[in-house]
Amino acid sequence: MIIVGEKINASRPEIKKIIEEQDAGALLGLARMQAEAGAHYIDVNVAVGTGSARDEAESMAWAVRTIVSALDTPICLDSADPAVLEAGLTHKGDRAALLNSTKAEGEFLLPIVDLAARFGTPLVGLAMDESGIPTTAEGRVAACEKIADACRNASIGYDMIYFDPLVLPVSTDARHGVVTLDTLGRIKERFPGAKTVMGLSNVSFGLPGRSRLNSGFLHMALLAGLDAAIADPLDAEFMIAVKSAEVLLGRDRRCRSYLRALGRRSEA
Amino acid sequence: MIIVGEKINASRPEIKKIIEEQDAGALLGLARMQAEAGAHYIDVNVAVGTGSARDEAESMAWAVRTIVSALDTPICLDSADPAVLEAGLTHKGDRAALLNSTKAEGEFLLPIVDLAARFGTPLVGLAMDESGIPTTAEGRVAACEKIADACRNASIGYDMIYFDPLVLPVSTDARHGVVTLDTLGRIKERFPGAKTVMGLSNVSFGLPGRSRLNSGFLHMALLAGLDAAIADPLDAEFMIAVKSAEVLLGRDRRCRSYLRALGRRSEA
Repeated sequence: MIIVGEKINASRPEIKKIIEEQDAGALLGLARMQAEAGAHYIDVNVAVGTGSARDEAESMAWAVRTIVSALDTPICLDSADPAVLEAGLTHKGDRAALLNSTKAEGEFLLPIVDLAARFGTPLVGLAMDESGIPTTAEGRVAACEKIADACRNASIGYDMIYFDPLVLPVSTDARHGVVTLDTLGRIKERFPGAKTVMGLSNVSFGLPGRSRLNSGFLHMALLAGLDAAIADPLDAEFMIAVKSAEVLLGRDRRCRSYLRALGRRSEA
Repeated sequence: MIIVGEKINASRPEIKKIIEEQDAGALLGLARMQAEAGAHYIDVNVAVGTGSARDEAESMAWAVRTIVSALDTPICLDSADPAVLEAGLTHKGDRAALLNSTKAEGEFLLPIVDLAARFGTPLVGLAMDESGIPTTAEGRVAACEKIADACRNASIGYDMIYFDPLVLPVSTDARHGVVTLDTLGRIKERFPGAKTVMGLSNVSFGLPGRSRLNSGFLHMALLAGLDAAIADPLDAEFMIAVKSAEVLLGRDRRCRSYLRALGRRSEA
């Protein structure tokens, strides 16, 4: 499965500090650790929340330049603002990237789809619209349908879209997990070739034993059709769960990746 | 999910001793512990391997009488021999039971189906025939089809059959897990109302971190349509995995069973 390393996110105070101080060494260290732990993309979210959109675009340009100058790993440009995404795209050079993300409606849908088309970059489409996250799988697939329409109009194939079915905590409504799993299956059926991506850990919010629940949900989600996870690759338990699911689904011949992940944890 | 407590099995030396010495106190202790830990059926396998079939039938009669005299929990009569199953059925009184199990072919298929019909007892049908366990999901469903035919001829409804899709270790063939999950889904589609049962732990045989793999596979199997597991209810990790899967599938309102299972482990 594809792992998008989530650690470089300015909502975390230590990352906010790195961005504000333009601490290239610390930024690169975090990117490198995630790549070495198995991340296929390094997510970059530089929205410190205090500056202007222009500040965010400049921070994105700096962060992307810093990472691509020293590391081969593809970058996941994480912002809801097309100007910020464009700054990242402009400075990434020929490095592979992923645009994260657009909702199904709103002023930014078409500009972000346009960026994806112009730069030939895949994009993440969230299964939600301006009024929020639909409570049913049908509603979420309908939101995906709007994103698929916009992509079709821009000549973007399904294989360039990562749909995020979104997950809410089962502690607030018992149906939340099932709706997400059901949405995953429907997306794979409705949009042949499209990929799916999710940040899974929200499912266990408010409950004890979160790592256990997250691992269980990851196994279910992979069976239901999840292709990629936005997660912390430095979380050894999570990475072992990924390898366990891949072994059980026959995607890890001779169980080598699983055994390596277990070994890595014992060494730590 | 339905838990069939597997501990009373004469292939384990300590159980063999209990059967041979007719140690009613020890037998009941094991049955009671499993019931209290959440077993819905107590599996009873008394094949010590040294005596005659008549000895096995007598041991089954003794074990069943001993358990039903002191405990309310339904019994899963575990033998491949119809005479042994009949001895259990004769001595169970009006206690609910489950016949475990028949293959899709062989001299015992029709006698066991006949017992199920005569005593109004559900039965476990293994997705295998005389030549072994089919390597494909199609082959396993074909085996189930033969059992379903025999049941139909005896006026036994699908709702009285627990099909076991069987699982082989992923360490010996990467496809083993997927074939089982695929078989589960096909059984639920092909035989509406039929239930499914499985001993899951075989999937992780030969690998380290078995409890983790078993938990992951349990989550996948529940999503694919597993109704019942033959397992050790005294294994706290396994029981928490069951509750985790039920929470994630929206079958544990307010997460009460999950929280109770976590609490029980902390007390232990």
